[in-house]
Amino acid sequence: MAKSHQTHIRVRGYHLDLFLHVNNARYLEFLEEARWSYFEDEALTPLFWQRGYGMAVVNININYRHGAVFDDDLVIHTGFSLVRQRSAVLKQVITLKNTDTVVADAEIVFVAVDKNSNKAVGFDDELKERLNSLLEKTA
Amino acid sequence: MAKSHQTHIRVRGYHLDLFLHVNNARYLEFLEEARWSYFEDEALTPLFWQRGYGMAVVNININYRHGAVFDDDLVIHTGFSLVRQRSAVLKQVITLKNTDTVVADAEIVFVAVDKNSNKAVGFDDELKERLNSLLEKTA
Amino acid sequence: MAKSHQTHIRVRGYHLDLFLHVNNARYLEFLEEARWSYFEDEALTPLFWQRGYGMAVVNININYRHGAVFDDDLVIHTGFSLVRQRSAVLKQVITLKNTDTVVADAEIVFVAVDKNSNKAVGFDDELKERLNSLLEKTA
Amino acid sequence: MAKSHQTHIRVRGYHLDLFLHVNNARYLEFLEEARWSYFEDEALTPLFWQRGYGMAVVNININYRHGAVFDDDLVIHTGFSLVRQRSAVLKQVITLKNTDTVVADAEIVFVAVDKNSNKAVGFDDELKERLNSLLEKTA
Repeated sequence: MAKSHQTHIRVRGYHLDLFLHVNNARYLEFLEEARWSYFEDEALTPLFWQRGYGMAVVNININYRHGAVFDDDLVIHTGFSLVRQRSAVLKQVITLKNTDTVVADAEIVFVAVDKNSNKAVGFDDELKERLNSLLEKTA
Repeated sequence: MAKSHQTHIRVRGYHLDLFLHVNNARYLEFLEEARWSYFEDEALTPLFWQRGYGMAVVNININYRHGAVFDDDLVIHTGFSLVRQRSAVLKQVITLKNTDTVVADAEIVFVAVDKNSNKAVGFDDELKERLNSLLEKTA
Repeated sequence: MAKSHQTHIRVRGYHLDLFLHVNNARYLEFLEEARWSYFEDEALTPLFWQRGYGMAVVNININYRHGAVFDDDLVIHTGFSLVRQRSAVLKQVITLKNTDTVVADAEIVFVAVDKNSNKAVGFDDELKERLNSLLEKTA
Repeated sequence: MAKSHQTHIRVRGYHLDLFLHVNNARYLEFLEEARWSYFEDEALTPLFWQRGYGMAVVNININYRHGAVFDDDLVIHTGFSLVRQRSAVLKQVITLKNTDTVVADAEIVFVAVDKNSNKAVGFDDELKERLNSLLEKTA
């Protein structure tokens, strides 16, 4: 994912747990942080907002491969891996900075949710085209 | 605070940090958990809700006295210590179960916030009376 | 999973996020809470501890099916769904209390990690037998 | 605190709570993030580490003055305000970027804890001198 979006996080004392590794739930906050940053940098959030849509995660499949410890520098790579009619898949990979060591990798499936009806809605053409263009960019 | 409201929390792996003690931010979630439980048991939340008020914490002063570790059984004691015209003070003490060991103690100042104006509002007579009755109960 | 272990959590204000649903990372803390409780009730934790093992989660696959909101009463059902030579799978389902509504369901794969070598180790016969007995119990 | 150390955090969806403001416990993580960054930039952490000391927060007094909302850009200013024989006080102020609006301000009292004895220890001359030099820098 050489051309993918990158977010940098340094592991702090409050990220760790009993085993002195970053706690499994905390990684999901790291991934969410990276997604907001990515959506912001690609001006995606306003596209959802202006339609009255929120984004709802419907599935996360995450592999924890290498326990990150205090002071590690993490790089979170984020990009689209699939765009469907009503859902899209983001691929996120966390690596140790300047290495090939994968700390965790995850696929995040999300849908657009209409804030009034609180129901998932399909992506319209403009939205789908935009997501597909990002798909190509990171392919 | 023998007669005060009690909430019980067992310390888990995800509550700890680099120093293998409960992290200082996590204690604030423990205190918030206890306050929701207290407000619920005393039927206080509906009194705020039905007026269109939320509760906003304006000050927390917390002493960390004894670092809680994995598997500790914590008891959070919650009660009112002061009721003013526009703010009230909750006293919360966290102890190790069945001991006199104080893990942390805190004073929490909160106000009622009108959800429409997003401004703090004074307590009306009915609300003040109710808070004062709880003050006496825990005195 | 009628005979499975149950953990109860009430949704509080600090569990929510921008969309006023429980945040996706917070569910992983709910699941971890339930696993500690389950391991405790089945006296599993000491079996790992006395061997010098920690538990490391290597994969979580979670479906978010229904957004839980403030004051919802959640029941987290936890049981084993698979035991292998070197890893085991826990199935966890979160439902709204007294309903069939599934809020989220997840499979958690974990391994035993030797605290000295910091490497994953296979389950010995005693450990495997114990995990298998729990598998049958929840089947 | 014009010359103080600055840490920047953008408010994300997972930082908020029921009232759509940053949750009171989350601010303590923001403050801890800023303290690690400050200690790192001033090369303070190694001074504690090499003596076998950890840092333990013993008191936090925080005023919540303005509820931060989604997408706010926060600046966390961190500096020493007092150095005693056995404890030091950090002053931390969170503002909205490019404004004078104070979101929260806090005083954090911390001590050095010997990792072997798990007891608070006094600052030796070298450590005290270093902390005092930082005190002057931010005064």
